[in-house]
Amino acid sequence: MASNSLSIDGDRLLADLRELAQIGKVGTGVRRLSFGAEDVEARGWLQARMSGAGLDATIDGIGNVVGRMPGVDRAILIGSHTDTVPSGGWLDGAMGVIFGLELARTLHASGVAGLGIDVISFADEEGTFVGTTGAKSLCGELPDDALDAARDADGTSLRNALAKAGWADRPPCRLDPDRHVAYLEAHIEQGPRLEAAGLRIGIVTAIVGMRRMRVRFFGRNDHAGTTPMAMRQDAGSALLRFGAAVLQRFEQLAGPETVWNVGAIRVEPGAANVVQSVSEMIVEYRDRSDAQLDRMEQALQAIANEAAKAAQADVGFEPVMRMAPAEMDASLADHIEQAAAAQGVPTMRMQSGAGHDAMVLARHVPTAMLFVPSIGGRSHDLSEDTDEADIRLGCQVLADAVSRIIAAENEQ
Amino acid sequence: MASNSLSIDGDRLLADLRELAQIGKVGTGVRRLSFGAEDVEARGWLQARMSGAGLDATIDGIGNVVGRMPGVDRAILIGSHTDTVPSGGWLDGAMGVIFGLELARTLHASGVAGLGIDVISFADEEGTFVGTTGAKSLCGELPDDALDAARDADGTSLRNALAKAGWADRPPCRLDPDRHVAYLEAHIEQGPRLEAAGLRIGIVTAIVGMRRMRVRFFGRNDHAGTTPMAMRQDAGSALLRFGAAVLQRFEQLAGPETVWNVGAIRVEPGAANVVQSVSEMIVEYRDRSDAQLDRMEQALQAIANEAAKAAQADVGFEPVMRMAPAEMDASLADHIEQAAAAQGVPTMRMQSGAGHDAMVLARHVPTAMLFVPSIGGRSHDLSEDTDEADIRLGCQVLADAVSRIIAAENEQ
Repeated sequence: MASNSLSIDGDRLLADLRELAQIGKVGTGVRRLSFGAEDVEARGWLQARMSGAGLDATIDGIGNVVGRMPGVDRAILIGSHTDTVPSGGWLDGAMGVIFGLELARTLHASGVAGLGIDVISFADEEGTFVGTTGAKSLCGELPDDALDAARDADGTSLRNALAKAGWADRPPCRLDPDRHVAYLEAHIEQGPRLEAAGLRIGIVTAIVGMRRMRVRFFGRNDHAGTTPMAMRQDAGSALLRFGAAVLQRFEQLAGPETVWNVGAIRVEPGAANVVQSVSEMIVEYRDRSDAQLDRMEQALQAIANEAAKAAQADVGFEPVMRMAPAEMDASLADHIEQAAAAQGVPTMRMQSGAGHDAMVLARHVPTAMLFVPSIGGRSHDLSEDTDEADIRLGCQVLADAVSRIIAAENEQ
Repeated sequence: MASNSLSIDGDRLLADLRELAQIGKVGTGVRRLSFGAEDVEARGWLQARMSGAGLDATIDGIGNVVGRMPGVDRAILIGSHTDTVPSGGWLDGAMGVIFGLELARTLHASGVAGLGIDVISFADEEGTFVGTTGAKSLCGELPDDALDAARDADGTSLRNALAKAGWADRPPCRLDPDRHVAYLEAHIEQGPRLEAAGLRIGIVTAIVGMRRMRVRFFGRNDHAGTTPMAMRQDAGSALLRFGAAVLQRFEQLAGPETVWNVGAIRVEPGAANVVQSVSEMIVEYRDRSDAQLDRMEQALQAIANEAAKAAQADVGFEPVMRMAPAEMDASLADHIEQAAAAQGVPTMRMQSGAGHDAMVLARHVPTAMLFVPSIGGRSHDLSEDTDEADIRLGCQVLADAVSRIIAAENEQ
């Protein structure tokens, strides 16, 4: 399989990333909350950059910035998101968007024909209102009632936020099955695995499914000095016994990349001298396999029921999140891996433990992701960073993968 | 051993209890916070009642109401406290004080000679400022610097509260080793054991010692999706594993009346998708034996160190309370038991799992306590109650015990 070469301009890429990082800059990081002033400014900046690169650029009715390459019928969609968490890093989603912009510019200048590149910055990936909101909208997964109901933590409605941004009356852009042959997303790893392995490129095999279950125990708030142990209905001890047992059981059930976490632990009344009447905890568990998540959920419920019984307490379950796993396209992943190998760059196949826009796109179009290392594994934090050489390399490997995809397409 | 009979007036006793319960009445309960308007009013009422009963009554510089029987050199001190928790029951400490008043009246009218009865309502037993504050003052256990430092939850100083009550400039009353031969305190059980056993009188063998240890784990707040399990420093899992293991170990170590509790459980940052960086819990444990409490404390620390190590977290310990156990006087307890037996009333020997003024007095004078049942085991609650027949019986048994103590004293 031959491929025409696409050589990215690393200096131009980094200059754009640095310029974008000025919008909403907070120390070494950024704050661009969905549909806030900085997010609106960044999307306007990006639209102008896309136009400057020869793309037909627009901001649609959900805030997605979409740049379509003119003169082609079929295109690879490349992007990520430019909104951030409240104290976010400068790369996160922005890097994948600027990779798309740089690849569109490079392809445009190269004269390589066959497929175009469309570039996208999805709206509200971080979930200030919904989470992967723009990706869902693009893929037709965001019904009107969900749009109507969405609110941020301050109670502002998504509709009002869109109106304030000036985008409410615009039509939404949709994924075009006749045009879009693939979706590619580059992202920082947001974890420590590449760094720990001394590798610079990760090939994502799947984005894990995620479930969160809130488990609540209900006891009775008796005097902790005068009530004999056997006469208590103790929500506190139920929680601790459940928590320790579920951690142990998950360890037995886990595959090599399964992860889980305990958070939002809370007891009432909280006093040291009163038996706890209410306790709760959210257990989160992530794996590439829905069957594995089912096994973990069943174990969790059985253990909670046992713990409640032992403490003479009642138990309740509330699923607070349920996100299906997404398999990446094997052929696209092979292209990225071979592109890296051709440069002599060793890679690691790995799951993404965090959610991404690609998770939604994968249900509708062949999708692949490339990771670059996160220094110290940090992300969603002002200290988030990646070595400049790794940013350049990641973009070049993606460019080489695009060359290979176009070549393969042309051979068909 | 002969004993002159003392017959209490149950109607008078109950009328006084009902009248006192009007002061600070909240629904079926009372609110008389230390040195607040209702507490001051109740102590004034009590002083007048004591004077009416022929006692030399005073309120001292810490707010103790002390009624001394004139014309005797030696006396049994009988009482408890009239302050309450914010939503307290009508009996709690008040019952023991009015028992003392009723016994002083009964003894006064009986012509029984040998020992007098002094009556006391201790200040601030409930710890609005210190806890068993009046008892400590009476026994010389409240140094000036502790008085200076004491504040309530609102930041009001004990000195200011005493000044506002009008008592700041008065001298403190002290326990008189030449006069006071014993201290007797009747109290509601504040637990479910007498009711569960179908018994009406409990003989207290000891007041348990109590320790509270705050255990804190320190981890690192990594992304819970992207950080492999083996690379985490997880304060949340450390807490759960520690909690479950310490509950299990305490169960093995426990004597028949040992109790323990977990409260004040808290994690940071609390989010479901972030590894917890800080977690903490207060473990409380109570037993009659200091050696037993030492064993529990050693086990607790060893288990916490193990749990921290397993979770790659750090651990810290902060003792937040340490109260020594108090043994009741065996001979006084025998007198109460025999007084009940003489009436054909079966009794139960039991520890007090809650603290009482008697805990302080026991370090300075032979001390005994009698319990009457708490309906449903409730206390420190507006719903706290005891059957009127049990209140009458408790006071009469205490009167009979006093007769026996006086007779034994006269025989020496």
